[in-house]
Amino acid sequence: MAGKKAEMWFSDYQTENVCLDIRIEKELYSGQSEYQRIEILQSESFGRILVLDGSIVFSEADEFIYNEMVTHVPMSVHPDVKKVLIIGGGDGGVCTEFTAYPEIEEIDVVEPDEELVEVCMKYFPDTARGLNDERVHIYHQDGLRFLRGRKGEYDIIINDSTDPFGHTEGLFTKEFYGICYQALKEDGIMVYQHGSPFFDEDESAFRSMHRKVYRSFPISRVYQAHVPTCASGYWMFGFASKKYHPLNDFDSKRWEERHLKTWYYTTNLHLGAFMLPKYVEDLLEQEEKENG
Amino acid sequence: MAGKKAEMWFSDYQTENVCLDIRIEKELYSGQSEYQRIEILQSESFGRILVLDGSIVFSEADEFIYNEMVTHVPMSVHPDVKKVLIIGGGDGGVCTEFTAYPEIEEIDVVEPDEELVEVCMKYFPDTARGLNDERVHIYHQDGLRFLRGRKGEYDIIINDSTDPFGHTEGLFTKEFYGICYQALKEDGIMVYQHGSPFFDEDESAFRSMHRKVYRSFPISRVYQAHVPTCASGYWMFGFASKKYHPLNDFDSKRWEERHLKTWYYTTNLHLGAFMLPKYVEDLLEQEEKENG
Repeated sequence: MAGKKAEMWFSDYQTENVCLDIRIEKELYSGQSEYQRIEILQSESFGRILVLDGSIVFSEADEFIYNEMVTHVPMSVHPDVKKVLIIGGGDGGVCTEFTAYPEIEEIDVVEPDEELVEVCMKYFPDTARGLNDERVHIYHQDGLRFLRGRKGEYDIIINDSTDPFGHTEGLFTKEFYGICYQALKEDGIMVYQHGSPFFDEDESAFRSMHRKVYRSFPISRVYQAHVPTCASGYWMFGFASKKYHPLNDFDSKRWEERHLKTWYYTTNLHLGAFMLPKYVEDLLEQEEKENG
Repeated sequence: MAGKKAEMWFSDYQTENVCLDIRIEKELYSGQSEYQRIEILQSESFGRILVLDGSIVFSEADEFIYNEMVTHVPMSVHPDVKKVLIIGGGDGGVCTEFTAYPEIEEIDVVEPDEELVEVCMKYFPDTARGLNDERVHIYHQDGLRFLRGRKGEYDIIINDSTDPFGHTEGLFTKEFYGICYQALKEDGIMVYQHGSPFFDEDESAFRSMHRKVYRSFPISRVYQAHVPTCASGYWMFGFASKKYHPLNDFDSKRWEERHLKTWYYTTNLHLGAFMLPKYVEDLLEQEEKENG
């Protein structure tokens, strides 16, 4: 008779008082890189999970939502994308999504943590496969230093960093958004993680994020997705742009004709993603008025 | 020096392998009614929480999302609502939302568990306040028995019951939807809880729900909201109707002119709520094709 196996749960603290617990079958990897603790856990409900410094970054079961939403939203708005920059994104998920577009000539991925890239390539080969595309160049550097001094180079910049504290803190300052503005071409678009607006603990970070970007770009809109492993299951993205509006310049027909396979994004959902709950609209409007 | 207080966490199992843990300050009430175990917990992050038979039903912090979405969506579509039926809904939240509409003449609430109503009135007086409205009649009966034999009586029926198992099982059968159809007027609308589509464990219930309603009503559409305390933070509602389409017959101007105060619903969000992720569209379409 087989004995009972120890129960293992991974606890992801969304705030001090709320925690998402996921049953774990096995720890597949645990190591300390120069920048952070990297762990890969195997779970029944979410497949493999990437944990950095104790917090979930993504899971196999829901990463498609995040990756598709940061990629296809700007790609269905900008009419002529040749050069893309992804800051952070060592897991390769966003990069892989962009490689589906044949007109893109160059994708720069700036990820300081080389070990993270290696671990992701080994444990998430399907997610990370885009990193092997010949148009992709990986730079193991700090995003802020990489960008400083670059002017009018990119059509799209994705800030894939999630953590406004710790070693990526510099990627969430007003200075950083100014540097991104400079590095974008005249009709460039930046997409960034805007955080979750639901818990009281996250509200001030959410507001401050909007304040900084709203002041730096002529067009600045926020959109949403349901990402189960994010705080309260609800995640926001920022769309900051020099010229194109995410809805007025959205070309659904052009995107449909590409016949890309997606699991979350549709051109219909693109529109709906910008239709926000009243409490989120109110938070954003307050910041806009105060900084009008 | 004050000693350390015991940590208390409420664990809401969303599946066998995923659990939302909420730090609890205090248990305010615990009792066994004729139908179920009723508990009220006080938390920092979600305020007061109603727990039935060990599972969260709603919290003060996010009930507005659910209540607004089941009420304002049909109310902004149907042009002339006089009589509403709410099945389940002993907490009064949906009822309170409907009482904001002066043209409604009668609201019937059918909730078998009298003790649940009393506990909610005591611990959630603001949520439950609508139950005291003079247009509201509470029937402590089984929903199925209450409805059987009624014909052409209601403009809107809300099935507020959450649990397709246990004592409310009868409210999730094909027979039940047929009885609702009969009880609705010729242009009546039914709104019901459609469950969460994300976890594998919930998928077959989600599909079977759509199959039953799709066969019973000429118009049947599904819409979404982000509800943090629901499984994966993502909840779906069904809109089943004899005549009105939730988008084509939606009158945003009429609703705006009411100047109702909301925290989640907007007429813009109404549209977006029907714009679903690809994987959800696919699940629904598969059922529709198989039952064409």
